[in-house]
Amino acid sequence: MKISARNVLDGVVKDVKKGATTAHVLIDVSGMTVTASITNESVDELALKAGAKVKAIIKSSDVIVAVD
Amino acid sequence: MKISARNVLDGVVKDVKKGATTAHVLIDVSGMTVTASITNESVDELALKAGAKVKAIIKSSDVIVAVD
Amino acid sequence: MKISARNVLDGVVKDVKKGATTAHVLIDVSGMTVTASITNESVDELALKAGAKVKAIIKSSDVIVAVD
Amino acid sequence: MKISARNVLDGVVKDVKKGATTAHVLIDVSGMTVTASITNESVDELALKAGAKVKAIIKSSDVIVAVD
Amino acid sequence: MKISARNVLDGVVKDVKKGATTAHVLIDVSGMTVTASITNESVDELALKAGAKVKAIIKSSDVIVAVD
Amino acid sequence: MKISARNVLDGVVKDVKKGATTAHVLIDVSGMTVTASITNESVDELALKAGAKVKAIIKSSDVIVAVD
Repeated sequence: MKISARNVLDGVVKDVKKGATTAHVLIDVSGMTVTASITNESVDELALKAGAKVKAIIKSSDVIVAVD
Repeated sequence: MKISARNVLDGVVKDVKKGATTAHVLIDVSGMTVTASITNESVDELALKAGAKVKAIIKSSDVIVAVD
Repeated sequence: MKISARNVLDGVVKDVKKGATTAHVLIDVSGMTVTASITNESVDELALKAGAKVKAIIKSSDVIVAVD
Repeated sequence: MKISARNVLDGVVKDVKKGATTAHVLIDVSGMTVTASITNESVDELALKAGAKVKAIIKSSDVIVAVD
Repeated sequence: MKISARNVLDGVVKDVKKGATTAHVLIDVSGMTVTASITNESVDELALKAGAKVKAIIKSSDVIVAVD
Repeated sequence: MKISARNVLDGVVKDVKKGATTAHVLIDVSGMTVTASITNESVDELALKAGAKVKAIIKSSDVIVAVD
């Protein structure tokens, strides 16, 4: 599947924290930690757990730029 | 300034493409390219151009996870 | 590829309108028109044009609910 | 009320799952299931429950396009 | 129409800048300027121009919090 | 830090409601209440509580415009 989102970052799941409906997935991307907030159902369907190889996908319109 | 967005990635601007109202900013983050779609006004106010040190900020609710 | 976004709708491209940097892609989904605002680059890379079979992907945190 | 969001899909609520703060609302739209992640407060204020007629509203900048 | 988005701010359009596909609408909200990036089509359909009474609608999952 | 997001609104926290993973932060902005849905971790790191001076940051691509 090819996707229009410009940002597709390869990573490895570090941790999954399930809440009541929403889970936080921490992903190691080249030594940085990227956090994704997704549904518990998606965690189950994708069988996400520490060590899983994943992609973090981010639409370019969702990226903010800052300078110090 | 401290910010609630979980993902704040350090990078360097590679290229800026201005459109009629919307600009695309390509940012090198640890060898990966992150694209941000922002307003032309923001490009001007932040003086964004190739070589500028920036941060790419992404809210965790905007990160999708995929597995092959 | 399996994806965490809950909403993956099958459709057919009706029209593509490229702007200076941002394109609008109109997709027929079961007789409804879904509009996606994506980069021109993505239109080119995915070779999007009228008649192409596509999926419209939407994260559940981006869906608003309204009642009359 | 007229709204700038390009995607306003008519549907019927199939299920509402409340979490601690965030609820998932499953909406039948022409036989497809659209999931919305919204606050519990909104579920209460809109009196959302199975069978309710609703609209699923999605901004075009939040739609990703994919091809197989 | 009642809407799940928690943030519905009353305002008055100050300026509309149309681009090739994407327009920027500047809205005065209690003396603050809120900028919305929407499609040109929406500007036309809603007949947005300086002086128009509008609402700026923002989903709570799209609000970032910062402290100095 | 200067940020590309066009909308940076000064406010004061009115209330913080933590859920299992996701918190709702109610912010008074010029007499209006702006709700932000953020992670519990961010609430802790920013030490958010009633009375705290904060900024509500919103990207212009996340603002919908409506007219009655």
